[in-house]
Amino acid sequence: MFAIDAGFPLVRNISALPQSNYGREGLSHITLAGSLIHGMKEIEIWLQTFSPGSHTPIHRHSCEEVFVVLKGTGTLYLASDSHRKYPDNPKMYPVFANSTFIVPVNDAHQVWNTDDSEDLQMLVIVSRPPVKVFIYEDWSMPHTAARLKYPYYWDEQCFDSPVRDEL
Amino acid sequence: MFAIDAGFPLVRNISALPQSNYGREGLSHITLAGSLIHGMKEIEIWLQTFSPGSHTPIHRHSCEEVFVVLKGTGTLYLASDSHRKYPDNPKMYPVFANSTFIVPVNDAHQVWNTDDSEDLQMLVIVSRPPVKVFIYEDWSMPHTAARLKYPYYWDEQCFDSPVRDEL
Repeated sequence: MFAIDAGFPLVRNISALPQSNYGREGLSHITLAGSLIHGMKEIEIWLQTFSPGSHTPIHRHSCEEVFVVLKGTGTLYLASDSHRKYPDNPKMYPVFANSTFIVPVNDAHQVWNTDDSEDLQMLVIVSRPPVKVFIYEDWSMPHTAARLKYPYYWDEQCFDSPVRDEL
Repeated sequence: MFAIDAGFPLVRNISALPQSNYGREGLSHITLAGSLIHGMKEIEIWLQTFSPGSHTPIHRHSCEEVFVVLKGTGTLYLASDSHRKYPDNPKMYPVFANSTFIVPVNDAHQVWNTDDSEDLQMLVIVSRPPVKVFIYEDWSMPHTAARLKYPYYWDEQCFDSPVRDEL
C-alpha cells in the first residue's frame, strides 16, 4: 500500500532523507514517517536536532507526544495546570541523552537546547497527524489567544505540492 | 494527568528503566511509553534489542508500526500480498543502523538480527495500544489460522497487576 507503492524504498537510510530548518533558526527536522509524505494515519515520527540555544515555540496540541533524547542536553518547560487562563510558571525538567518523556495532551510546553556547544537530538512521536499546533507568544498569553499554526512548518510544502522524500 | 501523577518521574532515564526478555530468548524489551504502564491511548514506544540470531515471531497486527534502527544490522521479512490465503514468500529487506521503515497495517512480517556478533537495537512505535498480535508458526500458515496473542508478552504482567516502571 502506501509504504511500497508510494515511490520510495521501504527501508530508508535516515542520513539520505531530506532535512530542513523550515525557516526556524537552529533546527534540523526530518520526517521519518509522516502523514502527508508517507500516508501515516495514526502516528508520525520526526528526528529533530536543535543547535545550542535553539528551541521549539511555546505550544500545545491535542495529541499524544513522546520524546526520546538521542544526544545532548536541554530543558523541558511544561505547564500542566490547564485550569488557569494562561500557562504561566511552567515547571522545568532537565532532559538528557538516553532519556524519554511524555507530554500530556494539551499541556503547553517548550523544549530548549540549553547546552553551550552540543546539539540536542530527539526522536519525536505524535499521534493524530498531521499535527495541529497552537502557539503562544509567551507564557502569560491566554490559552484562548494561542494561534493555530496549521499546516505546521514541515507540512506546508506537502499541502502545496505532494513531495516524495527521496527526490 | 497520567504522566505526572502516576508515580514515575516525567523525564525518565532509559538506562534505569526495567527491561526483560519476557520469556523470549535473545530479546531485551523496554516500554518507553506504554498503554498499560503510562496510560498512553494512541501510541506506544518500545526500545528493543535482539542478540545475534534472535528475531520476532512471524506476525501481523492491525495497527501502524514504524521502526527506527539505532544499532546493528538485520533482515526484515515482509509479506504484503494479503489477497493470498497465507503469507508465503515474504520479501527480504536489509535493515541497518540509522535506517527507518514502516510496516503496512496487517502485513505479516518478521525482523531478524542476522549479524554474527552485534546486537540489533531498534525503537518501535505502534498505534492503537495495547497491541493485539496474530502469530504465524511459519510463512505457509493461513492468515485465518494465525493465533491471537493478547495481551502480548510485555503486557501480560500489567494485566495481572498494574506496575509502575520505577519500582
